[in-house]
Amino acid sequence: DLPPGIDLAVVAVPASAVPGVVDDCAAAGVRSLVVITAGYAEAGAEGRARQQRLTEQVRGYGMRMVGPNCMGLLNSDPALSLNATLATVAPLPGGIGFFSQSGALGIAVLDHLCGRGLGLSTFVSAGHRADVSNNDLLAYWSEDPRTAVVALYLESVGNPRKFAWLAPQLARRKPIVAVKSGRSASGTRAAAGHSAALASLDVAVEALFEQAGVIRTNTLEELFDVAAMLATQPVPAGPRVGVVTNANGPGILFADACEASGLTLAALAPGTLDELQSFLPERAEFSNPIDMTDSAAAADYERALALVGRDASVDSIVAIYVPPMVTRPEDIAAGIARGASAVPSHKPVLTVFLSETKPPAELGMGARGYLPYYHFPENAALALAAASRYQRWRDRPRGKPLIFDRLTRTRLRAIIDGVLARCGRSPAWLDEGELSALLGTAGIEVAASARTTVAEAPAIAETLGYPLVAKVISPGVVHKSDVGGVIMGLKSAGEVAIAATRLEHRMAEMGKPLEAILLQREVQGGVEALVGVTSDPTFGPLLVCGLGGLMVELNRDVAFRLHPVTNVDAGEMLKSLRTARLLEGYRGMPQADRTALIEVIMRVSALVEIVPEMSELDLNPVKVLVPGAGAVVVDGRMRIRPAENPGVPSADPPIPR
Amino acid sequence: DLPPGIDLAVVAVPASAVPGVVDDCAAAGVRSLVVITAGYAEAGAEGRARQQRLTEQVRGYGMRMVGPNCMGLLNSDPALSLNATLATVAPLPGGIGFFSQSGALGIAVLDHLCGRGLGLSTFVSAGHRADVSNNDLLAYWSEDPRTAVVALYLESVGNPRKFAWLAPQLARRKPIVAVKSGRSASGTRAAAGHSAALASLDVAVEALFEQAGVIRTNTLEELFDVAAMLATQPVPAGPRVGVVTNANGPGILFADACEASGLTLAALAPGTLDELQSFLPERAEFSNPIDMTDSAAAADYERALALVGRDASVDSIVAIYVPPMVTRPEDIAAGIARGASAVPSHKPVLTVFLSETKPPAELGMGARGYLPYYHFPENAALALAAASRYQRWRDRPRGKPLIFDRLTRTRLRAIIDGVLARCGRSPAWLDEGELSALLGTAGIEVAASARTTVAEAPAIAETLGYPLVAKVISPGVVHKSDVGGVIMGLKSAGEVAIAATRLEHRMAEMGKPLEAILLQREVQGGVEALVGVTSDPTFGPLLVCGLGGLMVELNRDVAFRLHPVTNVDAGEMLKSLRTARLLEGYRGMPQADRTALIEVIMRVSALVEIVPEMSELDLNPVKVLVPGAGAVVVDGRMRIRPAENPGVPSADPPIPR
Repeated sequence: DLPPGIDLAVVAVPASAVPGVVDDCAAAGVRSLVVITAGYAEAGAEGRARQQRLTEQVRGYGMRMVGPNCMGLLNSDPALSLNATLATVAPLPGGIGFFSQSGALGIAVLDHLCGRGLGLSTFVSAGHRADVSNNDLLAYWSEDPRTAVVALYLESVGNPRKFAWLAPQLARRKPIVAVKSGRSASGTRAAAGHSAALASLDVAVEALFEQAGVIRTNTLEELFDVAAMLATQPVPAGPRVGVVTNANGPGILFADACEASGLTLAALAPGTLDELQSFLPERAEFSNPIDMTDSAAAADYERALALVGRDASVDSIVAIYVPPMVTRPEDIAAGIARGASAVPSHKPVLTVFLSETKPPAELGMGARGYLPYYHFPENAALALAAASRYQRWRDRPRGKPLIFDRLTRTRLRAIIDGVLARCGRSPAWLDEGELSALLGTAGIEVAASARTTVAEAPAIAETLGYPLVAKVISPGVVHKSDVGGVIMGLKSAGEVAIAATRLEHRMAEMGKPLEAILLQREVQGGVEALVGVTSDPTFGPLLVCGLGGLMVELNRDVAFRLHPVTNVDAGEMLKSLRTARLLEGYRGMPQADRTALIEVIMRVSALVEIVPEMSELDLNPVKVLVPGAGAVVVDGRMRIRPAENPGVPSADPPIPR
Repeated sequence: DLPPGIDLAVVAVPASAVPGVVDDCAAAGVRSLVVITAGYAEAGAEGRARQQRLTEQVRGYGMRMVGPNCMGLLNSDPALSLNATLATVAPLPGGIGFFSQSGALGIAVLDHLCGRGLGLSTFVSAGHRADVSNNDLLAYWSEDPRTAVVALYLESVGNPRKFAWLAPQLARRKPIVAVKSGRSASGTRAAAGHSAALASLDVAVEALFEQAGVIRTNTLEELFDVAAMLATQPVPAGPRVGVVTNANGPGILFADACEASGLTLAALAPGTLDELQSFLPERAEFSNPIDMTDSAAAADYERALALVGRDASVDSIVAIYVPPMVTRPEDIAAGIARGASAVPSHKPVLTVFLSETKPPAELGMGARGYLPYYHFPENAALALAAASRYQRWRDRPRGKPLIFDRLTRTRLRAIIDGVLARCGRSPAWLDEGELSALLGTAGIEVAASARTTVAEAPAIAETLGYPLVAKVISPGVVHKSDVGGVIMGLKSAGEVAIAATRLEHRMAEMGKPLEAILLQREVQGGVEALVGVTSDPTFGPLLVCGLGGLMVELNRDVAFRLHPVTNVDAGEMLKSLRTARLLEGYRGMPQADRTALIEVIMRVSALVEIVPEMSELDLNPVKVLVPGAGAVVVDGRMRIRPAENPGVPSADPPIPR
């Protein structure tokens, strides 16, 4: 019975009645659905089958669908003024585009934003994301002029490879803030049990967000705190903060939180301090944070903010106010609003009102409009620090991944095809010769080595030169040095003969077969690094690196990035390690060839591109020699898993869109 | 003109008039003062002198004084009903005793607690703490039956040695929560500039709080969140949390925050789950967190809370509520209050109301009274985790420090007195012989060694046995191995002769005088540990330990404790290291003698007691051998600073009380 020209139908009938309604909608020419109805992927095998049928039905008609089992959507564009949600509050229009994977949480989000005076451009609770996903919304928000900042509540990333493609493009233009829950074992269990989405290793999420420029917050409150700032203020150009306060204590708390999160307190120009001294009382503090004392009046805030804001050494400004007896909060709020208007428009202004109640409405009545406010100094610092980290990401060069030329690609595939032929297309470890050939072809230097027998070891040693290391090759022995299967420092054929015999005995004692002896040129000196690849079923290949040999695993000091890794990414990986100083010549040790190590990481990433069958790679140790001398792989192992296979970066995984 | 019997005078006249008022008060028999007046320690040299005179005047009369430059005090005992603060709000009576070093922040504290419905037993803003200090209040609160939890805002600790004595005694009975600001370089600058208190290394504060059982929070908001729980709920007996929610999303966020902070989600008993299934809808989630779905009514909350609360596998209970359309918050609040009343009284109940506004008053109207509430799930998890950590501290044995017998003490003092005589009572490093003798007397094993010349080295080597290490002794060379001043693995007199000559040349090349050659038995194998002492001017001697040789400093993975260190403290120090696994036989390395390392730490602490002149001790490396084989000091250095001196644990430092 519907008239023509319906844009959107909201379906809120029992699950059994949905197919009929969808048919009716199609007949009436409706192109878009919001399906509120529950009883789908969250309701066992039967529900999942029902969802599959619904999705096929909708797609068959060429419709788009939000849901099922969702809380609806909202668009505050005055031309639409659409509120198709279950929420009772009427959200304000504004610059935040919000995506919530949880419907119930979505209601809390709308309530919170509304109470805080923050407006939305768009809000979508997408339920099971059977059709429209967070990735569709990233694409939409990228083009939507009304959206200034994107906020996501995610329990899973959906299709992370699409996310990895879309998010950085959006983040170059608009900040994305996200809470991703399900980090912990319990959290993951709850998320998997409920949202019918695949659980993901948190380390992969961390790497994805880091590379994509997504600001990840630890808590929901932090999500709001950061979004409040980014929706209303510009991104600061740098980390230097100027603070104006009427009390010292909160100023110290703010300073602590700043420095803990990578911000710095600006050193104000002498001219600024002179002018401040001209009107503030003698007992005020004339270094940043500027403590104007509890007698600070509205006019003092106004002048001080304008002065500090105009100081070229300041990238952002924070006004802190503790309501004392002698001033009226309404007056101070108005003074801050006036002062903020005199701050150059490219510098953000944040406020802290240390009080249980909301700041007076006057705060938002200046020429600059809404000023973000926080009840505690640390929250403001956290929001500003997140914005500042985002600015660094946005403004740094992307770099380029390394790509092998056609000849190299052909030669690499020939080696892998040989392995595939040898192992009959079942998962397998490469042997020493295959791995050496593969790495060598990929331009990664490997210590010269040869596989031999106990009897022939001395003769082979003479062809390699000295010093040498002898290692056992035995099925099942993966960490050779852990079982005494490595003898170093062999300087003659005689020493090699003794070592080979000793290794033979050692394996016999352990009841392990000795397949062969590997002789390898000993690489002396250098910083030990680990470079590897692990494959996440949802996220695809992850590159990992660490420094310090055995200590890498002990300290869990490693950096992960999703493939592909650019030169800039590789450099950031090394910089993020606590052990980064090892490369700079630590405590009398020689400096190490950082450039060569970065190149190894990039060549491994390029190799992943050519060998999608790679399920595991572990180059450990890579000896990073003095600058100019390169980096040499001393030991490594690589596993491939052919075919239908997690590991192919180009294939779409079987997960919800 | 005052009548007799005045208990307290509040002095709020200009600084110049204060002495006269104090005289008048004394004449009228007043024994206690609150001095609000500013212009003292914060106002330069003149102000400090004025404060000194005021303090002497007050003490001369045998009066006690809060302030000067403070915001007053408050006592909500109905017998007193005293509010001598500058705050405009009228705080509620309750169980929180609050100390604020910042007056302005104190106003915000009162405002916040009041808005949150939390009551105070006592509140003190002590300004410059010229007389009454936080330590006096710790002693008072220890005896005050109306105070259930103590909350501190500190910019400096005052007299940390008194604090270290008083705080653990109080914390055994009542929790202490503290924010200590001034962690960062800027924060410290602001704190030092303003509160006229000495800046302290944050690591010392961290050690002090850890040992004293003080719950340190990172932010002011966390201080309130933790205090709200501890003021109204019992301390949980363990880390297992039961969660009841009407939405899955917040449940996941809570679970994530739990696991990140050391709590666990309880595995509920099958009987509990069966009973829950008898009344909750089929689509509810029947594993912890229990998601009752958005249809959950007040009666569901009541029954579920009572059931989960009575489950023996649960130590604490959290109710999470997202206001949906179908239920009234007032009803739910009442249901939660009734359910909480059925939870055994020794288990805490916390609530999360995901809404911008306060929960309805019904929440506090059950038999259990006030229930702490949080707007976000993570805040509740944080408060509970802090309470759980406190419980572990409170219930674990204290252990005992090691104390040397009289003979040992006498012999140790004789060695030190010899050093003092040698160096003419000026600061000095102990030489190898002195340090060996001192450590040996203290029961700490040192590798056998002898100081010799290049010429005599081979002969001395024969008396020591092999293998040996040769080290340079040269003024100004502190890290010998960094300059190539160590040669290891010497197995004969001939090798020793060559090594000694090589060291001589190396020093000559560097233009450093070679004072002597140190020959030392090489200790083979073992895990390298660092055990040391550093002296903080305010906090006194700090013990430090770490594992992993060179990597200790690179990873900054060290544990600090204030002297004296008990066996339990020493064990906790080792446990807190990321590298702790090194002691357990890591990756094929042998296990190490943890007991022996703990004993070294305790013997060093005992040594500090006898040698208060010790300003720096560095035993690095200590080789920790296989269990039963002990721990041997391979290299060490110790500096003493005689006399009037930071380092004497018994002396009171020149800081405010």
